Amino acid sequence: MIEPQQPGRLAATYRLRCPTYEEATEVARDIAREQTLEVPPGVVDGQLEERLLGQVDHVGDHPEGGFDARISYALEVTGTELLQVVNVAYGNVSLMNGVRLVDLVLPAEVLDALPGPRHGLDGLRQMVGAEAGRPLVSVAIKPVGRSSRELAELASTFARAGVDAIKDDHGLVDQGAAPFLERVTTVGAAVAAANSETGGHTIYFPNVTGPVDRLEERLDHVVAVGCGGVMVCPSLMGLDVMRVIASGPRPLAIMAHPTHSQVAPGRREGIAPDVLYGTLYRLAGADVVVYVNAGGRFAWPVEQCEAINTRLRAPLGGHRTSAPAPAGGVNDADAGSWLERYGPDTMLLIGGSLLAQTDLFGATSRLMEAARAATPCGARS
Amino acid sequence: MIEPQQPGRLAATYRLRCPTYEEATEVARDIAREQTLEVPPGVVDGQLEERLLGQVDHVGDHPEGGFDARISYALEVTGTELLQVVNVAYGNVSLMNGVRLVDLVLPAEVLDALPGPRHGLDGLRQMVGAEAGRPLVSVAIKPVGRSSRELAELASTFARAGVDAIKDDHGLVDQGAAPFLERVTTVGAAVAAANSETGGHTIYFPNVTGPVDRLEERLDHVVAVGCGGVMVCPSLMGLDVMRVIASGPRPLAIMAHPTHSQVAPGRREGIAPDVLYGTLYRLAGADVVVYVNAGGRFAWPVEQCEAINTRLRAPLGGHRTSAPAPAGGVNDADAGSWLERYGPDTMLLIGGSLLAQTDLFGATSRLMEAARAATPCGARS
Repeated sequence: MIEPQQPGRLAATYRLRCPTYEEATEVARDIAREQTLEVPPGVVDGQLEERLLGQVDHVGDHPEGGFDARISYALEVTGTELLQVVNVAYGNVSLMNGVRLVDLVLPAEVLDALPGPRHGLDGLRQMVGAEAGRPLVSVAIKPVGRSSRELAELASTFARAGVDAIKDDHGLVDQGAAPFLERVTTVGAAVAAANSETGGHTIYFPNVTGPVDRLEERLDHVVAVGCGGVMVCPSLMGLDVMRVIASGPRPLAIMAHPTHSQVAPGRREGIAPDVLYGTLYRLAGADVVVYVNAGGRFAWPVEQCEAINTRLRAPLGGHRTSAPAPAGGVNDADAGSWLERYGPDTMLLIGGSLLAQTDLFGATSRLMEAARAATPCGARS
Repeated sequence: MIEPQQPGRLAATYRLRCPTYEEATEVARDIAREQTLEVPPGVVDGQLEERLLGQVDHVGDHPEGGFDARISYALEVTGTELLQVVNVAYGNVSLMNGVRLVDLVLPAEVLDALPGPRHGLDGLRQMVGAEAGRPLVSVAIKPVGRSSRELAELASTFARAGVDAIKDDHGLVDQGAAPFLERVTTVGAAVAAANSETGGHTIYFPNVTGPVDRLEERLDHVVAVGCGGVMVCPSLMGLDVMRVIASGPRPLAIMAHPTHSQVAPGRREGIAPDVLYGTLYRLAGADVVVYVNAGGRFAWPVEQCEAINTRLRAPLGGHRTSAPAPAGGVNDADAGSWLERYGPDTMLLIGGSLLAQTDLFGATSRLMEAARAATPCGARS
C-alpha cells in the first residue's frame, strides 16, 4: 500500500493487535503521544500540543484481524535526518507488543534530504555493460575459513563466466583466514584480471561491515583496489552509515544485506519487510537490496517478496530505483522461473547452490544465459 | 540464565517455537549452518565443516512451550569484533519466524576485546558525589518544541534540586526549536551555573544520536561545554557507534536509550531484552542503560526488569557494572517503592510525571530524599 504524500507530514501506518475499534483508537492516541511529545496532557500548552502531537488520521479494521491506524507527524518533530525519521516512525513504540509498522509515507522535505541510490538499477546496468532491460545476476564468495586466495579463485571463475556482481558473504569480515585488506586486494585483483581477459565489467562488492571507526580506511582501500561497489549490513552497522557512504565522495555502488534486520512476514511487531527494505534501505542509498526469497531457507511467501520489489521500483521523490536481489537458498536451476515471476528489473543472487556445482564456470554461464533470455524483446532491440 | 563460559566459543541459546523435539533439533542444526558456513553440506571439506560449523550443544524443552537450543560458535568465525559477534549470534536467523535469542555467553577473548562501561555505576557515583551505595536519580528535559532557553530553565531547577543526571529526551535531536549545538551550550551552561551555586555535581547527558558523520563534531562540542556524559540510542545509531564513543579519547559517561531496539518480553522472535541491554549494551560501553519499567506505559512484567538488572550487575569478564535505569511512565511518587524493589544499585529515571508537577523543585528534592532513604545503612556509615 503506497499512499499519496501529505504535504510536510510523515504518515506512518501501524497494524495494531487490538480486539475492538475503541481499544485500537486508544492505542493509536498513545502512540501519537509517545512518538512526539512524550509528556502527559497538560504539561505543555495547548498550542504546542496542537502543533506537535502526532495526529491520528484514520483507524480501520484489517481483513486479517486487528486494526490499521494511520498517524501523521509534523516536520517540526521529524526533521529531515534519517535516524530521527526512523525514531519517530518506530522508536519507543517498537517496545510495545502488538504494534507493527506497515506503511511509511514521507514528505518531500525528507525525500529530498536523503541520498537514495547513487546509481540505481539502470546505473548498475551501465556499470556492468548489461544491455538495457536485462536482469542482473550476482553470486557470493564464501564461506568463512577459506583463504583470500581460495576466495579469489572462486571470484575469478565467476567473473570469467560473465556474472554481473560478486559479493562477499556477509559472514566474511576480518577473520584470520581472509583478513579484510588482504581479501579485498586479492579478490579485487582476480576480478580485474578476469575482466581484462574477457572484456567484461564484473563488479566486486567487498563486505565493509565492521568497526565504524575503521570504515574510512576500508572504503579507501576498496577504491584503491579499484572495486566498483561495497556491501554493507545496515541493520547491523547502522542505517545512517549506509547513508554516509551513499552521500560521500566515493562513487561506489552499494549492496545492502539484511542480516540482523529482525523482520519477517506475519509478525505482530517489527517493521514490515517491504517498508524497511523498499523504503528505508532505498532512501539510505542502497543500489541493490538483498532479501530472503520465497522457496528458499526462510519460508517467506512470494507476495512479501513482490511487495519489496514493488517498493524498490515505485516512484519515490526523485530517487532512482534499487535492484531487488532475492536470495537465500535460491537454486541456480530455478533462475529462469524466478526472473519470469519477478520481471527483468531484478538482480538474482545465487549463493550456496551454485558453489555446490562441480562445473562452476558452466553453471554460472547458464545463469547468465537465463538472464539474457529473460530480457524483454523491446529492450534488447 | 547466565551460564559459565566455554573456552574460546560463543554460546547462544535460542528459544524455538517448534511442536516436537525432533523438529527443534532440525531447526537448531539449520541455525548452526546458517550462522556460520551458510553453504550446503559437501561444498567445503569435512575438516572445515568440523572446525567452523556451529555446534548444537543441547536441545531441551522449555516449561512455557517450545524448546531451548544452545549452539556454540568457534572464535575463528565470531572473531572479537562487536558487530560480527552480533551477526553470528542473531544475523540471518533474525529473519526466521519462531527463533528468539534468549541467552548469550561470550568467551574471554570477546569480553576482553570490548570496552564495557568506562565509569560504571560506582564511577558515576563518584562523578556526582553520591555517597557509597546510594541509588542515583535522573530526569529528562523535554519535549520537542521547547526552546533551548526553556529546556535550560528546567535543567537549572533539576540541578539546583540536586538530581544526579539530566538527560535530553531522545526525541530532541537537532530540530529548529532547540538545535543541538545551541541546546548543549545553553543547557550545559545552566547546569554548570546551578552546580556552582549549590556545590553539586549534576551531569548533563545531551543526546548525540543523529548523523554518524557529525558525531565527532558533537562529541567535541559536548566536551568543550564541559558536560560529563552523552546519551546515545545504540539501536538507532548503531551498537558499534556506542563502542567507539566508549573506547575513544573523551572520558564521557554514556547513557544508552532503548528507542528502536525492537524488543519486548513474550515475543516469539527478537532478542530477549535482558540479553540486548544487559549483555550487549553493557559490553558496548553503556554506563547507564535506560529501559521501560513495569507499571509504566509499556506493560512489561517486573520480572523482565529484574532480569535486565541482574545482567547489568552480574560479573562479566573484568567489566564494571552498569546502572539500570528503569523509566517510561514511572510516577515520581512511587520512586521509593521502586528503589525498594530494585535495590540501591539503580538509577531511577523520572520523566513526564515530574514535569507535570507544579512545584518542580520540591518534587525533585523529594526524589533525592527517597534516594538517600534507600541507601543501605552499612554503605552510608
